[in-house]
Amino acid sequence: MSTPVLFAVLAPAVGDTARPAFEQVDAAAPYVNVMDLGVTRGDGIFEAAGIFNGHVAALDAHLRRFANSARIMDLPQPDHDVWWEAVQAAAAAHEPAPELFVKFIMTRGIENGSTHPTAWAYVADGGDHSKERSEGISVVTLSRGYRHDIVETSPWLVQGAKTLSYAVNRSVGREAARRGADDVIFTSTDGYVLEGPSSSVVLRMGDLVRTPRTDQGILAGTTQGGMFEYCESKGLRTEYGLVTVDELLQADSVWLASCSRLAAPVTSIDGRAIAVDHAFTDEINAALLARKD
Amino acid sequence: MSTPVLFAVLAPAVGDTARPAFEQVDAAAPYVNVMDLGVTRGDGIFEAAGIFNGHVAALDAHLRRFANSARIMDLPQPDHDVWWEAVQAAAAAHEPAPELFVKFIMTRGIENGSTHPTAWAYVADGGDHSKERSEGISVVTLSRGYRHDIVETSPWLVQGAKTLSYAVNRSVGREAARRGADDVIFTSTDGYVLEGPSSSVVLRMGDLVRTPRTDQGILAGTTQGGMFEYCESKGLRTEYGLVTVDELLQADSVWLASCSRLAAPVTSIDGRAIAVDHAFTDEINAALLARKD
Repeated sequence: MSTPVLFAVLAPAVGDTARPAFEQVDAAAPYVNVMDLGVTRGDGIFEAAGIFNGHVAALDAHLRRFANSARIMDLPQPDHDVWWEAVQAAAAAHEPAPELFVKFIMTRGIENGSTHPTAWAYVADGGDHSKERSEGISVVTLSRGYRHDIVETSPWLVQGAKTLSYAVNRSVGREAARRGADDVIFTSTDGYVLEGPSSSVVLRMGDLVRTPRTDQGILAGTTQGGMFEYCESKGLRTEYGLVTVDELLQADSVWLASCSRLAAPVTSIDGRAIAVDHAFTDEINAALLARKD
Repeated sequence: MSTPVLFAVLAPAVGDTARPAFEQVDAAAPYVNVMDLGVTRGDGIFEAAGIFNGHVAALDAHLRRFANSARIMDLPQPDHDVWWEAVQAAAAAHEPAPELFVKFIMTRGIENGSTHPTAWAYVADGGDHSKERSEGISVVTLSRGYRHDIVETSPWLVQGAKTLSYAVNRSVGREAARRGADDVIFTSTDGYVLEGPSSSVVLRMGDLVRTPRTDQGILAGTTQGGMFEYCESKGLRTEYGLVTVDELLQADSVWLASCSRLAAPVTSIDGRAIAVDHAFTDEINAALLARKD
């Protein structure tokens, strides 16, 4: 295990004037106050991006999503340039490795304090995901408990923001393990496919590659975006739409797309086998690892 | 503002052998590692209790609820005696004041690390709630997005646990403010009254005092429990049941019960006036402040 790198981001929001805007600090030392709303209330937002051969993948897409999460959560607008530079600096400060990840976080700050966001970027070893990419993963579907139109009816539930309140996303992983599966696909109470707890769902039916529409309270997938670009370059059609669980079970191929594991082919859903196109999956992952966006 | 007190709890779970089991640390210094699952995923549990004239109110009820949250979240079982003593020690270490609060937290620990829980107890000034107790609060109802039977159908959503994933509980407070109200009562998608984001709902109709049943994914209210005890001592009947929004609007009195604010009388719900029984509310709060359980 290599030594992680931590950068404190001191000027995370538009209008912040602290300089330096970010600086390296000791990654092993405690950094967060016990009254920080990030830890007492999961009141903050985050992003995680892959770093492949020193290049941070899809950083602009991650920063767009980070800004969207801040908007949904009524947090100050992140300063794009500060975060871009802080993430790149943190990535560069880590000892070189084929696959790393960066996690960056902005909380609402210390309760009863300044209300200034607490922010940091953390870079560490991404782990070895070659087995999931080549052999695939088994998944179960679990209801998220909401209808697919929850953002429209109840925007205060902050669905669609990538927040620090991920206890459910963790809990469903334990439920999957109890059912003997590797991962989860969330469904809506009215029968639509949503997303994984830390991934997007992508399915292929013939020449059409689909993913659930993001107006259902789910995240715009940065890795799914990269998959769509690759598929389009190969002449496949791509589509954002409503996807039912039945359509998922009838697909030719299904993947869960995420920033470190990349395109993990799904081998079964709720115990029903799904065919895996190993050659095409390898192509996709080679393209994702080589992204220079 | 008095100086807060922080105790690190080093042996928070049954079977932990670290000694001392807890110790005072610097409350102003950072305590939480950036890779602690408490802050990266809101993956942990908490309790907050009132401390009135040096006495921690309903600590046994809080510790029971803490243990129940740990069970729902598949966390190690908290060591009752260690937590009891740590909380009492932290309360005693704070300079005396009429109203303080203690917040105690146990997270799942540092990711990719030991997986040993990180834990602490924090005591600080409880603020002045006399205005809410005497003048009351206005509330709006907001859907939590789930049906009332969500625990039965989808236990992996960890409803009924008091977790660190409270972004929604914070967000609804901002929505209430946008609507000109002080607080929120959550409702289920099928029309039942649930709880406030940090309080229990108690309503009175004649000689009957009611609160929503806790099998609807809501917390067992420790302050609501104290209110029921007082009401029973005055010859009123008490009941846990299903409560509809219509029943709430037709009640003689409605309160939101929480550990620091205690019984806050509700003056309006969604703009409709609710009568306030100031004398009875004062009696209840006097009894809650004097609890010696």
